[in-house]
Amino acid sequence: MPVLDIPAALRQALALAEQAIGLTDPNPRVGCVILSASGQVLSSGHTQPAGQAHAEVMALHDAAAHGHDVHGATAVVTLEPCSHHGRTPPCCDALIAAGVARVVVAVEDPNPLVSGQGIARLRAAGIAVELADAASADAARELNTGFFSRMQRGRPFVRLKSAISLDGRTALPDGRSQWITGEAARADGHAWRKRAGAVLTGIGTVLADDPRMDVRLVPTASQPLRIVLDPQGRMPAGARILQPPGAVRVIGPGRADLPALLAELGAQGINELHVEAGPTLSGAFLDAGLVDELLVYQAPLLIGAGRPLATLGALAGLDQARRWHLVEATPVGADLRLRLRPT
Amino acid sequence: MPVLDIPAALRQALALAEQAIGLTDPNPRVGCVILSASGQVLSSGHTQPAGQAHAEVMALHDAAAHGHDVHGATAVVTLEPCSHHGRTPPCCDALIAAGVARVVVAVEDPNPLVSGQGIARLRAAGIAVELADAASADAARELNTGFFSRMQRGRPFVRLKSAISLDGRTALPDGRSQWITGEAARADGHAWRKRAGAVLTGIGTVLADDPRMDVRLVPTASQPLRIVLDPQGRMPAGARILQPPGAVRVIGPGRADLPALLAELGAQGINELHVEAGPTLSGAFLDAGLVDELLVYQAPLLIGAGRPLATLGALAGLDQARRWHLVEATPVGADLRLRLRPT
Repeated sequence: MPVLDIPAALRQALALAEQAIGLTDPNPRVGCVILSASGQVLSSGHTQPAGQAHAEVMALHDAAAHGHDVHGATAVVTLEPCSHHGRTPPCCDALIAAGVARVVVAVEDPNPLVSGQGIARLRAAGIAVELADAASADAARELNTGFFSRMQRGRPFVRLKSAISLDGRTALPDGRSQWITGEAARADGHAWRKRAGAVLTGIGTVLADDPRMDVRLVPTASQPLRIVLDPQGRMPAGARILQPPGAVRVIGPGRADLPALLAELGAQGINELHVEAGPTLSGAFLDAGLVDELLVYQAPLLIGAGRPLATLGALAGLDQARRWHLVEATPVGADLRLRLRPT
Repeated sequence: MPVLDIPAALRQALALAEQAIGLTDPNPRVGCVILSASGQVLSSGHTQPAGQAHAEVMALHDAAAHGHDVHGATAVVTLEPCSHHGRTPPCCDALIAAGVARVVVAVEDPNPLVSGQGIARLRAAGIAVELADAASADAARELNTGFFSRMQRGRPFVRLKSAISLDGRTALPDGRSQWITGEAARADGHAWRKRAGAVLTGIGTVLADDPRMDVRLVPTASQPLRIVLDPQGRMPAGARILQPPGAVRVIGPGRADLPALLAELGAQGINELHVEAGPTLSGAFLDAGLVDELLVYQAPLLIGAGRPLATLGALAGLDQARRWHLVEATPVGADLRLRLRPT
């Protein structure tokens, strides 16, 4: 019996899942590769927009379209196949009906309607099911960090984005911030907006910069919901953020309760929330401990006097400061992209 | 005739030159490897403290001590051999007298007393001389960036060191800064102090933190000169910076003229000047365009209100900010070491 190259198939399936970013929300990003009994790649696919086919069904259709028989084949899939009737029938049933002999799963589905039951259902039908290596599991989970957050915590994964100078300034004292970082960093920032179900900012930023807050520097099939917190009802009718493309939600007048807002966004299917705001609102998210990731573009210049990344509550001592750990420090053009998560 | 592995010998010679850091100032850090005609490493050496043997002579002694004949051998050296009588006789003469057939030089000596004349003298004696590849030349120059600066510009290479939070703070509003960065970053900072002929700070830092400013977290054969700018003559007699080990120079009362001070330090043989100061003095060096490298340890935490890296003159616009380019971004413990140079 030939040894199948499962790691290569997992890499391919993960690459396919990445292509589903910006396409499948609120559903997870999933890729599937089907290997013949002799180890050839028969077909592949990734999740389609919500209500349409999942990765496994796409891959089965792809095989059928090419006239490939998948009896005895191995399906390599980045997330546990679903076992429940949602907007589409269960993928488990499709795999069983197609006669697949073996399924390799990168990570279990955190959805309580699925978790472990997809694997159990496949096994009950006589299919051999294996979990992939830990690195593949991490990569599959990371691709769906927002979906996992919503399933496990009932709220989106919150990513706070900022563009700062080496000395931590986001703007000159008068608020001018165009541009601290370069074009490559700004396009990269849009790629992260694209991952998000919603982009959130504050009315202060709207009044100061009149930003669009949409995804336009990278191609995307859809636009995130744009949310503006406007406690005093100061939104100008002509603000660019109110224009197409994409939906806009203005929250106010009245001060938003951030944990309640996150719970509500989670209930609405927002997996990742991208916060791109001024120091007051950024500080409110940070002081409340609601930030799951800092995404900071650091430009190689010193500004001196200027606006801070966040206005935070006073610290009694340095040991009181919340520590983060650096996930990555990657040059993007002349700037440096830093991602940090709470320790 | 066997092909000698010159790249390997250059790497070995550069590694030897690195061992001369903290030992040879004001002389450059140089390494030398001698290969037999059949390509075997016969001997090696690096520059000793000023007034003692240079790398080539050390390698020749090493060969003699092991009973190796170096007639017809190849000497691989990271800096052009000296041709003048300084405190020691010229290395060129020693290589010629020893009967070496070939010399590979990583980079020409910027010292106007040597530049090119060492190579010419060797060639006049019938020795084949070659320059090494560009990457080895860069590495050899980089190891002696301060020596090159002093020879070519008459002043030290100025490295400004700072430890900051992600939001650019060096201390809490009351000045407490112990500790923003971790132990690994602090030891790494001492390794950079060790490279310097002098460490410079301001009286404000002395009064606030009572630092020693010596090299103690890494082993060293010598201590840099410690310099304190004290324009109002406020130095306390009991300040720790006045204690051994190493020499101390207090400049003041009276305001130091920074370019004149750098010229004076260059004339005194200071190759690298390590500036570790508060925001006022750091800002003065930066605003005067006298900083050749920023060495910044960035800790993964947000402080909010606090002290800035540097107090700088107001910018008319962001396009007026001096741009730097990132030389490296390297994790050191939980922190990130950033080095930047002017574009």
